[in-house]
Amino acid sequence: MGTTIDHKVIFGIDIGGTTVKCGLFDGEGVLLFSDEIPTRKDEGGSRILSDIEAHIKKICEDRQIVKSNILGIGMGIPGSITEDGVVNKCVNLGWGIFNVKEEMASRTGLKVFVGNDANVAALGEYAKGGGKGYKSMMMVTIGTGVGGGVIIDGKPIFGAHGAAGEIGHIPMVESEKETCNCGKRGCLEQVASATGIVRVASRFLNDSDEPSELRNVQYLSAKAVFDEAKAGDGLALKVVDYVTEYLGRGLAVSAGVIDPECFLIGGGVSKAGDFFIKKIEESYRRNVFYPSRDTAIVTATLGNDAGMYGASQLVLAGL
Amino acid sequence: MGTTIDHKVIFGIDIGGTTVKCGLFDGEGVLLFSDEIPTRKDEGGSRILSDIEAHIKKICEDRQIVKSNILGIGMGIPGSITEDGVVNKCVNLGWGIFNVKEEMASRTGLKVFVGNDANVAALGEYAKGGGKGYKSMMMVTIGTGVGGGVIIDGKPIFGAHGAAGEIGHIPMVESEKETCNCGKRGCLEQVASATGIVRVASRFLNDSDEPSELRNVQYLSAKAVFDEAKAGDGLALKVVDYVTEYLGRGLAVSAGVIDPECFLIGGGVSKAGDFFIKKIEESYRRNVFYPSRDTAIVTATLGNDAGMYGASQLVLAGL
Repeated sequence: MGTTIDHKVIFGIDIGGTTVKCGLFDGEGVLLFSDEIPTRKDEGGSRILSDIEAHIKKICEDRQIVKSNILGIGMGIPGSITEDGVVNKCVNLGWGIFNVKEEMASRTGLKVFVGNDANVAALGEYAKGGGKGYKSMMMVTIGTGVGGGVIIDGKPIFGAHGAAGEIGHIPMVESEKETCNCGKRGCLEQVASATGIVRVASRFLNDSDEPSELRNVQYLSAKAVFDEAKAGDGLALKVVDYVTEYLGRGLAVSAGVIDPECFLIGGGVSKAGDFFIKKIEESYRRNVFYPSRDTAIVTATLGNDAGMYGASQLVLAGL
Repeated sequence: MGTTIDHKVIFGIDIGGTTVKCGLFDGEGVLLFSDEIPTRKDEGGSRILSDIEAHIKKICEDRQIVKSNILGIGMGIPGSITEDGVVNKCVNLGWGIFNVKEEMASRTGLKVFVGNDANVAALGEYAKGGGKGYKSMMMVTIGTGVGGGVIIDGKPIFGAHGAAGEIGHIPMVESEKETCNCGKRGCLEQVASATGIVRVASRFLNDSDEPSELRNVQYLSAKAVFDEAKAGDGLALKVVDYVTEYLGRGLAVSAGVIDPECFLIGGGVSKAGDFFIKKIEESYRRNVFYPSRDTAIVTATLGNDAGMYGASQLVLAGL
């Protein structure tokens, strides 16, 4: 049972493949409370929205929040979504094609605003995190995959097919022989995601006899690669240089399209910190068209809460 | 001496390296009259703005246009320009760094709106040309160089350093050995501009003994390459395939960033027509992330007038 809340509130919901993060924000977008519920993906993900609906109801009962005080529900969705709210197969949730915005609005009788999770996280960082103070920004989220979100003048760019900011699947690596999850070859994600970094490291280890601490680690992970590179391991450094070369190029092509004021690096891999950012920066400065050479490259600061923050901002912006 | 004009008008000015195109538009953006004056680049390009000022004055005298009927002057500039109007070295004009918007406004006492010529041409095509009916669009202008402009929800994206849409200088060709004008290596422009196409053709001709009609042409041009490819010349076809492969990838990476509803191909090389567009399209569909696979790829329709049209639209949009 929480404290009674008698002012305007917003729900910022971040739907992930494992958990749904639920944030309760005040009318200015300040986080009051958050928790999470499991994402039930069985039965084609049909329980996800009803679980969220029930959870919101419970939070409101606990805190005696009246419906008229709820400004709206913002939701970040892990997949392509149009500005109208139609999802196009969120593979991670088991969803097909339907209008998630309309469905949630009709379930709750509340105003609902939705966006792709990466775009929404970008909006969160823009408003309340590492992007504060910049007018335009591209966030690149490097985790299991590589995603991204573009914000221009405070507005997230969704794209005509909900695929704006999806720089994980831009064609980048001409020499790539293996196929990406998406069916293409040479996607940025294939070398720059956590999985991609491990794949590159395995390949470098197999292709040479160079001694490396990476040959002794029990579990080859992106973190192990960065740790050994920081400790001066030659082969690990080559892996990091290869990966960050392509990440820098990915930012450089993005600058050629939208020329943002700032790039924000988030996601689990960004925990590799300054060492990682400096390497990306070095490649970016070398690969980008000169007018955009000084664009800021910074780390995200909201971590896993960015999605909830961004979802609440969708409501505040009435997007 | 023209007809007397007693209604609201707009001047749409497109400053090029050789001529300045001057369009007189009505208050709805309909072109009433156009002509051009030479671009005098001597003395650091210091005469260009005064020449335009004098020419506008003359047009107004000829048509008895009173100052209060002039809604404003829009100008497209061949170089990077910030949203505030500061140009950053228009190499083609001999200009340094100064605020062209403020200077023109103080010269004329009129409202002045400025933009990069490629962005402005894109706006023209969006409002009155091949982009009509689309909400978001990226225009790629393929001429001596490769430029571009991005329009989202009717607004041109300038970029933090005036370099949005500059996809001529995105890193694309990993195997490129030569240096681009910009100082980098592997820029899209190096293979996809008119000059780049000729360069690729020369290289293909030198690197093989394959018989080709291109060996007999007196003057190797992008047009000759396309003409011979259309006529079935094997080597010319390989050149076109190479060039359009990278152009398709360039559009694919752009889709990964902004996912526009439409790509518009303009500039002199686009005269190669459907044959060219189809080849770009084929590469694009193969290289792009699947949600954006059906994005329209169409040709620009306003030709050299796009810049004037777009400049007039800057005024109408109050940008």
